[in-house]
Order: sequence, then structure tokens, then C-alpha cells
Amino acid sequence: MLKKIIIKGAKILTMTAYNEAGIINGDILIEGQYIKEVGKVSYQVDDVEIINGNNCLALPGLINCHTHAAMTLLRGYADDMELMTWLEEKIWPREAKLGADHVYWGSMLAILEMIKSGTTTFTDMYFFMDNVAKAVEEGGIRAVLARGMIGFNDQDNLTLNESKSFISNWHGEGKGRIKCMLGPHAPYTCPPDYLVKVMDLAQELKVGIHIHLAETKQEFDDIRKQYGKTPVKHVYDLGLLNHPVLAAHCVHLTEEDIAILQECSVGVAHNPTSNMKLASGMAPIPQLLEAGIKVGIGTDGTASNNNLNMFEELHLASLLHKVSWGDPTVLPAYQVLQMGTIFGAQTVGLIDEIGTIEVGKKADIILIDLNKPHLYPSHDIVANLVYSAQGSDVKTSIIDGQIVMKDREVLTIDEEKVIYEAQRYAQKIME
Amino acid sequence: MLKKIIIKGAKILTMTAYNEAGIINGDILIEGQYIKEVGKVSYQVDDVEIINGNNCLALPGLINCHTHAAMTLLRGYADDMELMTWLEEKIWPREAKLGADHVYWGSMLAILEMIKSGTTTFTDMYFFMDNVAKAVEEGGIRAVLARGMIGFNDQDNLTLNESKSFISNWHGEGKGRIKCMLGPHAPYTCPPDYLVKVMDLAQELKVGIHIHLAETKQEFDDIRKQYGKTPVKHVYDLGLLNHPVLAAHCVHLTEEDIAILQECSVGVAHNPTSNMKLASGMAPIPQLLEAGIKVGIGTDGTASNNNLNMFEELHLASLLHKVSWGDPTVLPAYQVLQMGTIFGAQTVGLIDEIGTIEVGKKADIILIDLNKPHLYPSHDIVANLVYSAQGSDVKTSIIDGQIVMKDREVLTIDEEKVIYEAQRYAQKIME
Repeated sequence: MLKKIIIKGAKILTMTAYNEAGIINGDILIEGQYIKEVGKVSYQVDDVEIINGNNCLALPGLINCHTHAAMTLLRGYADDMELMTWLEEKIWPREAKLGADHVYWGSMLAILEMIKSGTTTFTDMYFFMDNVAKAVEEGGIRAVLARGMIGFNDQDNLTLNESKSFISNWHGEGKGRIKCMLGPHAPYTCPPDYLVKVMDLAQELKVGIHIHLAETKQEFDDIRKQYGKTPVKHVYDLGLLNHPVLAAHCVHLTEEDIAILQECSVGVAHNPTSNMKLASGMAPIPQLLEAGIKVGIGTDGTASNNNLNMFEELHLASLLHKVSWGDPTVLPAYQVLQMGTIFGAQTVGLIDEIGTIEVGKKADIILIDLNKPHLYPSHDIVANLVYSAQGSDVKTSIIDGQIVMKDREVLTIDEEKVIYEAQRYAQKIME
Repeated sequence: MLKKIIIKGAKILTMTAYNEAGIINGDILIEGQYIKEVGKVSYQVDDVEIINGNNCLALPGLINCHTHAAMTLLRGYADDMELMTWLEEKIWPREAKLGADHVYWGSMLAILEMIKSGTTTFTDMYFFMDNVAKAVEEGGIRAVLARGMIGFNDQDNLTLNESKSFISNWHGEGKGRIKCMLGPHAPYTCPPDYLVKVMDLAQELKVGIHIHLAETKQEFDDIRKQYGKTPVKHVYDLGLLNHPVLAAHCVHLTEEDIAILQECSVGVAHNPTSNMKLASGMAPIPQLLEAGIKVGIGTDGTASNNNLNMFEELHLASLLHKVSWGDPTVLPAYQVLQMGTIFGAQTVGLIDEIGTIEVGKKADIILIDLNKPHLYPSHDIVANLVYSAQGSDVKTSIIDGQIVMKDREVLTIDEEKVIYEAQRYAQKIME
């Protein structure tokens, strides 16, 4: 028999309405992996687990559209540096020392942190992906995973073959919580002939493509110099955007690029903290949204953030574009929350399964403890959530119908052990 | 006999060194209001209260250099609006309904939130200031208070007289925790002849002046049109900057303005969230710091933030200027932390009392619980603090030698009652 859970007497922000009128007072019935009822639920006490939703806000779990989870091991290792110095002298030499076990423990630390700050799905691009998938399976989180692929010197198609076997092993695993994509790193690390091979493989495996695109001015200038066109136009002309594509960053875009992204229904992962911290620039997000492009939000890796706290990203997405556009009305609270939930689900291709609280969707739900000084008074619960809440206000988290955190205690992960091992493996790469 | 407290076995970030070499492992002895020893402390168990500092970071309490505490009652009431519409249609009509009790409960809610997120001193400008001072006295926090003064139609010098009596009643009260300033609101709300009266009173009472200055482009343009000079030059020519001045915002400045601020040792309160949320602009903070100007950090009121969480402000100060200057090396983590502590103390005129952990200073110390997933690994404790910590990571807070929060429980305030009353008074002004 399927396990039943009822969240009883919560405020429910379904994210299905076009505005915050979508808040209802009521219950949510979960059966197995799915949401079965929303509103007034009748139930028998003996066959369900009851979660008290009193003074809590239930909303869809947050979707982190772009990260490199295992980079938690490099959190705080190198900050406040020029991008290329940072990569070449700090990040890459240490990443070269990472083994499969490092990636497992780094990913576990990331998953622990994400669950504790309200993320229920993350989208990852890294390596030793079998171990990332293993961590996802054990941690109980949902994930869209891609092996990061660099096209230079890919002798014997090593990364292509590795991606292929990763996808055949893991796509749909974890009771469907794990989805896979191909992850060609970026136009400047994947030459055209390699990208063609990636497209062929995407076609064969019927999976989407996750790529960094137009992140820095340097990339924009280099690609233009090398190919005579912008990064977006370059991959468009290669046919890459005929596939379902998740494009991370999209900071440096022309009007034509925006039209292309719209025409090809490209999903964009906006990473406000990373773009600010690395001084990559300010992505034209209000323009992308205006054009009807699907925009989700990501944290990027912790080496350039330095956390995986989606509440900070929601907050920053709104603030950054208000000041950069000189207009306090852009990216209002509810729209930013859509980017963190329903738009994120569209962006990563999971809108049929998650992103809203609706009957028939998978039960990915977080409960916010509203009993905090900074969440009073309650004039506007959505504004309070986006502009004042902290990741630590998440009290309980349900993913795929499983309670993964209850009253701040993560039930799927041995917190003490993960912290201990992650610290140990982080020290190893510094030796 | 004076009460003794020992913080035992903590990591201590004294903020006295020019870099993070200032972290030592050891104990802190507090006697009465003062720090007596830092390092290895010998003690007898029976006459001291011991605080276990294991896996904690002790640092000077954060200093919020500019806020309007009682505006918590308006948190989330009106967001994502044009500045003047927001003020004229939303904020001012509701503020007109505030009475002394509203201000008391709004300030109590603010103080509760500030203590729970690591602030030990705040700098306030509002009205019904007797009730703000009363809340400060009861809540156990440290504050620099000013009655906000508008110079139009100030018949019979009402606000000047009120300020004078407020200062004579409260300056130095709360065992010295309360300091007062004069608070002329801004150059565009205080005509020159009124500012002259303010200066005379400041001279007479020997107090500093807290003023909003060069916050918006509109103010910059209006003042230039009216007086033929920039806001900074305007108040400089009036002689205002010959007094100790705390200038909030300073977003719109010329090179000459920066030279004036430097020449007059003006303290600047930078409010990154407020400047972003209201789209006021990006203050030239790296340039001000380069010129040797004292810059602290503030939250501004919750109506334009929407919280009083200084950890978010530290974080944002660094990120905002990295992206606005296109340079990831500006405002590195340690410098931002200086702005939140030692520079803040200089800015508000309290550097002889607070801002560092040093023998002879008042004991304003917070303990960060490092046992959090997002604070591992421990490559760089300062980077973790500025780029990854949340307000809720503050475990214990000591202000003026008194433990005001222990293990997240605020000891000086009845949390439940304050939330209840603040909610009730917030609803009243909506009627």
C-alpha cells in the first residue's frame, strides 16, 4: 500500500495562479510519490502520517537550475580574484586532484545543504557523475545530471562514451528522481566538430543538453573573433538549439541572440550571485522574461557563490535587476518566486512532474516556518518570503512523497558523518 | 562584584589586524561591561559563567549604521514600486497613523530580529524616539538614536525642541548603551535656515548629526537646480560637515564631493539592499574606501529591504561592487567584515568603545555556530562568514557584557509577546 501523508492546516502557495491570489488555507494529501488532493482533505488518523502545517507556508520545493555540487569541497578556498587567475592558479589545479570519493562526499555535503535551505531539485554538471548520482539516490533529492564534457583532445571520444554509459545507467533511476542530460561545457571548450558529435548523441539518447553560454565578455569577444558571430548565434548555426537546451548564464546577449533563444525555446539558468561575484556582468533578465523566454535560477558552484542557498538567489535576482535597470518595479517578488519554482521546472524540462502544488504532480513540497521575527507582520507573505526569509526558515521538506527533512532534521543523511568526511576530503586535495 | 563571563575555547576574530591573521584560538574574559583578557584565560569555576566556544567563531557584534527600526511594522506592505508612488501613496499615509505604542512594538520587533541575526548596535532615525529608547533599554542592545527632523513648517521649532529634550533625557542612558544624535532628514526636506539651527543645537549639545545625503538621482538633480551645487557641496558650504556627521547613502557623488567627504572625515553609511531595491543606484564605495573615508554598512528600514539582517548586507556590499566595477577583486571578504564592525564603529563615533575584540573595549561579541553544512570545509573562515553564513548562524550574543541571546534564545525579550503585539499594531495602521 502506498504511504499517505497529510500536511494539515497550512497556508498553501500553489504557484499555479498568475499572482499571489494562489494562496489558500487548507491541507495537502500525498499518496506515494504524488499529490492527490489540495484543499480540504478528509482522512482517517490511523493510516496517514500527519504533518502539522500550523503557521507554516507550503510551497513547491525550489529548483536550482545550475550548479556543480561537489565543488562544495572548494568553498572559500579562493575568492576575490580575477577570473582567469582564479581558474588557472587555484580551481583547476585542485579539481585535478579530485577523485570519485571526493565527488561523492562533496555532493553529499551539497545535497545536505540544499535540503536544509529548501531546494528539492538541482541541475548539475561535473565529473565522476556516477558518484553524484549515487549521492542523489541516497540523499533523496531530485536531480538533472550531466557529465561535463570538454572537447579538446577528447581522444577516442572518451567523454562522449562516458556520458553515454552514465545516461544508460542512471536516466530514470532513483524511482524517476534522476534525469540525465549531455553536458558540453561551453562553446570555447567544445569545438564545432565535437558539438556535432554531442548533438548526434543527444538525438540517439533522446536527452537534453546543458551548456554554459555567453557567461563572460571574454567568451563573447573570443567566440566572435574566432567564428565571426556571437556565442548564441554560433551554437544556433551549428543546430545545437534544435535540441532541448538549458543554457547557463546568458549574460552577454545581443537583440538577435534574445530572438534566437525565444525562437528555439531555450531554457536559461540565471545565476545572480556568481555573475556578481566573478564580475561577469548583469544578464538582461527582464528582457528575456518580457520575450517569453523560460528563465530559472541557479547558484552555480560554491567556489563562485559560496553557498547553495536558493533564498539568497531569489532575493538577489530581484535586487540586481532593479538597480541595473534603474527601475524598482522589475522582477517583483511573485515573478522571482515563479523563476525559483514553476519557471525553473520548465527550464529543466520537468514541468509535467514538478514546479507547482497541483493534484497529479510529484510531491516536492517545502514548509516555511512563519513563526520568525523577520517574517512578521504578515502584510504580504510572498514579499516576506522573497525579501526577508532565510534558507534556515525551511522547517520540513518532502521530495517525491518522502519526508527528507522534518523540523530541521534531515532524515536521509547522516549530517555529522557527511560534514566530517567532506572536511577530510577537502583537506586531502590541499596537500 | 562585577559579573564575569568566560568564552572558552573559541576561534576569535579580533578585527584588530589588517587581515585575517587576526584569528586566534583562545578564551575571552569579560568583567562587567568590559573585555578584560583575550587569549589564554585562567579562571576559577565558581565565580564565572562559562560559555562553551567549541566550534564557534567569536567576533565583534555587527553594527547597523543606518535604519528606521520601527518600520518593521510596514515590512512587506508595499514593494516593487516607483519611489515617489511608494512614499506618497503607501508609506507616508501609513506612517501618519503611527503612534507612540506602534513605535515601541515595531522597535521591539526590530531589536529582536537584530539580536537574532548578529547586530549588537544600530543607528536609528525616526519619531516617538522616547519609545525607541525605551525598547533599546529593555532589549539590551546598543543604539545611536536621532529624532528624524523635517524643516518645512517647523512652527515654534517643534522638532528642534523635541530633539533637545530627547537628547537631554536619553544621551548616555542604558548604562551608556544609548547615544544620541540630531537627525535632520535630508537637504531636500531641511531648508538652509533650518539646517543652521540644527548646527547651532549640535554645537550646544555636543552631539553628531545623522542625515540622508545624495541618495537618489532626483535629489542630486533637485538640489543642483535649487542651489546650483551638489547635495554634498551644499551642506559643506553651509558648514554642516564641520560637525561629526554620519551621512546615509552617498550614492550620487562627484569627485569633488568625495574629496569633501574625505576632508571633513564624514562617516558614510552604505545601504546596499535599499539602494538596489529602490533602484537608487550604486554608490562608489571602492572609491570612498580608497580615499580613506570611513564607510559602515546599514540595512535602512525594513520597508525598503525587507529585513534587518546584516549578514545579507555584508554579502551584498561585496557582490554589488564587484559587478558594478567589473572587478572581482574589489571589496574582498575581510574588508567587508571591517565595514560591518571596526569601520562601522568609526562611522558612528563609537570606535573607542566597540568594533573590535580588544582588552578595554565594551564586550559586544557574537558567537557563530560553525557546525553548519554551509560553513564547511574550513579553508577560509572569513570567506565562509561573508559569502556563505546566514543570520541564523549566530548562536550567542553578548552586548555590554550582558548575555542577550544564548543558544538562539533571546533572554532580554519575550519573543512571543513582541511578535503578537507587533502584528496587532501593524494591523491597526491598516484599518
